Amino acid sequence: MHLAVFAQAMGVSQGVWRSPRTVPGAEQSLAHWTHLAQTAEAGCFDAFFVADALTLSSGIASDATLRPDPVALLSALAATTSRIGLIGTSSTTYNDPFTVARQFATLDHLSGGRAGWNVVTTAIAAAAENYGTDTLPDHADRYERGEEFVDVVLGLWDCWEPDAVVADRTTGVYADPDRIRPLDHRGKHFQVRGPLTIPRSPQGRLPLAQAGSSGPGMQLGARVADLVFTTQVDPDASLAFADEMRALAVAAGRRAEDVKVLPGVTPILGRTRAEARELAAELGSYVSEQSTLQFMTASFGGLDLSGIDLDAPFPDLRDQLPAHAGVSRPALFIRTALEEGLTLRQLLQRIGLSIGHRSLVGTPDDVADDLQRWFEAGAADGFIVIPADMPGGLTDFVEEVVPRLQRRGLFRERYAGATLREHLTD
Amino acid sequence: MHLAVFAQAMGVSQGVWRSPRTVPGAEQSLAHWTHLAQTAEAGCFDAFFVADALTLSSGIASDATLRPDPVALLSALAATTSRIGLIGTSSTTYNDPFTVARQFATLDHLSGGRAGWNVVTTAIAAAAENYGTDTLPDHADRYERGEEFVDVVLGLWDCWEPDAVVADRTTGVYADPDRIRPLDHRGKHFQVRGPLTIPRSPQGRLPLAQAGSSGPGMQLGARVADLVFTTQVDPDASLAFADEMRALAVAAGRRAEDVKVLPGVTPILGRTRAEARELAAELGSYVSEQSTLQFMTASFGGLDLSGIDLDAPFPDLRDQLPAHAGVSRPALFIRTALEEGLTLRQLLQRIGLSIGHRSLVGTPDDVADDLQRWFEAGAADGFIVIPADMPGGLTDFVEEVVPRLQRRGLFRERYAGATLREHLTD
Repeated sequence: MHLAVFAQAMGVSQGVWRSPRTVPGAEQSLAHWTHLAQTAEAGCFDAFFVADALTLSSGIASDATLRPDPVALLSALAATTSRIGLIGTSSTTYNDPFTVARQFATLDHLSGGRAGWNVVTTAIAAAAENYGTDTLPDHADRYERGEEFVDVVLGLWDCWEPDAVVADRTTGVYADPDRIRPLDHRGKHFQVRGPLTIPRSPQGRLPLAQAGSSGPGMQLGARVADLVFTTQVDPDASLAFADEMRALAVAAGRRAEDVKVLPGVTPILGRTRAEARELAAELGSYVSEQSTLQFMTASFGGLDLSGIDLDAPFPDLRDQLPAHAGVSRPALFIRTALEEGLTLRQLLQRIGLSIGHRSLVGTPDDVADDLQRWFEAGAADGFIVIPADMPGGLTDFVEEVVPRLQRRGLFRERYAGATLREHLTD
Repeated sequence: MHLAVFAQAMGVSQGVWRSPRTVPGAEQSLAHWTHLAQTAEAGCFDAFFVADALTLSSGIASDATLRPDPVALLSALAATTSRIGLIGTSSTTYNDPFTVARQFATLDHLSGGRAGWNVVTTAIAAAAENYGTDTLPDHADRYERGEEFVDVVLGLWDCWEPDAVVADRTTGVYADPDRIRPLDHRGKHFQVRGPLTIPRSPQGRLPLAQAGSSGPGMQLGARVADLVFTTQVDPDASLAFADEMRALAVAAGRRAEDVKVLPGVTPILGRTRAEARELAAELGSYVSEQSTLQFMTASFGGLDLSGIDLDAPFPDLRDQLPAHAGVSRPALFIRTALEEGLTLRQLLQRIGLSIGHRSLVGTPDDVADDLQRWFEAGAADGFIVIPADMPGGLTDFVEEVVPRLQRRGLFRERYAGATLREHLTD
């Protein structure tokens, strides 16, 4: 089983900063981030996963979802951790591939081969306004650019051969020019000569993570991703999704096991079920419907949801989504609401606690049982653990659930490898 | 007196990796970079200054000038140092201002207020080929964009007021929206809404460094830079330059002392003058004329220098420079050659040792005397120390020259402040 932690400074539950379990200002503190990363490392997690958004949450007044730059943050954590993988999010829509390739290669050098890149195409419309335009490119256009962007980055990571640095003081040859080739990419979106300004990093081609579950998103993930992060609330649907990803990977010339499918899960733990439910109720009490509605609106590509009755059954909006919107996330929210007959208010509560991912409220044994069930059914190769609150939600999981998974022989007791790629394949 | 170290992994002297005083592969090692930064911090330096180039040196075969990403590198060093300022280079021609503002603000948070941004417009023609075009924009166009870029970054750093995060658990207000305003910049080159995705960083508006000594470069520096890095080989010329910068700063509505003028200097130290000359000769023996010629060609905007006789007096090429080339650096090289009647071969030797900056070959007393003379004449507010070899060149300076400057009351014996801005003004 593979585990990564979705690392948001205070956790993802909307308004969780109001809980005494969190520390205000945490997102600005290297000491806090170091504590989180070292806690995950003590739990032998494969990776510390930092999401991103290129715009401030419009609900910032009641929300504390602040976003430091992932590359800068993870580079600092490279110095304060030694084994855990460090996966950072970077957008293919609002960056240059030369910059992204170089920043992540640098992170890989500094961390001794622990870097990974979470490829996103950016689905929040307001990000466009910080990058020179009023609206996002359409979903299809973003993925077309994203495909080419990824190819350029992979190509740049390959320009330096592993032994290109010879550093022969006698002959005066530092690097062998025959083992450093330019990329000379000329495509529709990019024209990039290469090579990079630093030698090949320890992992060379870094592991990629990807979270798109739309058609184009799955195609990209199947072709290049080592780790697919997905929102799944039903084990059969998750198995079907994982099987489709594996089949697409094989169709793309890879092995089925090259793509690890990791659904997100938010564990809310208590020594007893009653205690866990109490914690869930406490966290739920902080959820602001208004802020969660803003989050949901952003997920829906800016679709206006303000006219929807909070207490009537949620309507089927699938054909009203704007063309630039994400596809899989809104579809899942809508389908869940329709299938379970949820009102908007009920849907907001659920999304608010775990940004729409599956939440598991129970004892450590309950949670371990559930994860084992999904894992053994093939519905998951592991999980992205998305703590509702930090550091408590992570600490509880590491102290109580990880040892149970280890005793059951499902999860490593110590790191076998040194690099992120080794963690993902051991 | 203010001191920053120009931090290149093995030092700047061309071919210095062939010296037993250096460690091959140093640019890839966080332990090595940490050693350099901690050495400079032990010497109470104001800042650790990381230059950059967005293209691999064409002389890489005999050269070891490799370039990790400055933001990633300095973020790691934020975790392994505690007091020294961390100044990173980032180009206004090949980045987006939202990204640069956010990355440096993040570095400022992670380092507790020690970040600075060295603003460059990129003068090496080959960089363009890594960013989608065949040639650089003209010098004037680069500065026009650079001026607007800097204004956007400064504006983004000001969007969050210092006390915007209130984190009031009772009322449920995390951040006061009245103290977070958008930027709403709409200019010729950029359209950026803001605000940033993280609260105001400890320094708010970070100190800026700038190295352009052309007309537009000096205008930009006088308007926004806290630290001006300049190539000066003659104290009278340096005084005239510093006076002009101060006058321009005053004309731009600032105080003369707001701009610190720091010429670069390469100290080559020995216990005796003979020992220092021996070291200079050893380092000089590694200088490859061919690689230095490539470096010089790049500095000259790609002007073809291959037809020039190595052993004839260097010709006056000032009116042959391409429009996109830097201005001040080539002019200085040409003027120096003309004034001293140097041949190209002699010029290459000199440029090879110290990338064209002034080198000081002598005892610690000689070097301290020289720095004191420049400083007391007003020709410098301090220096960018550019070690020819690393770590030795830095260690020698910190152990032998810094204590002499301290005993003479010219340089701090301990850090008085906590932030880079405090170092630059104490």
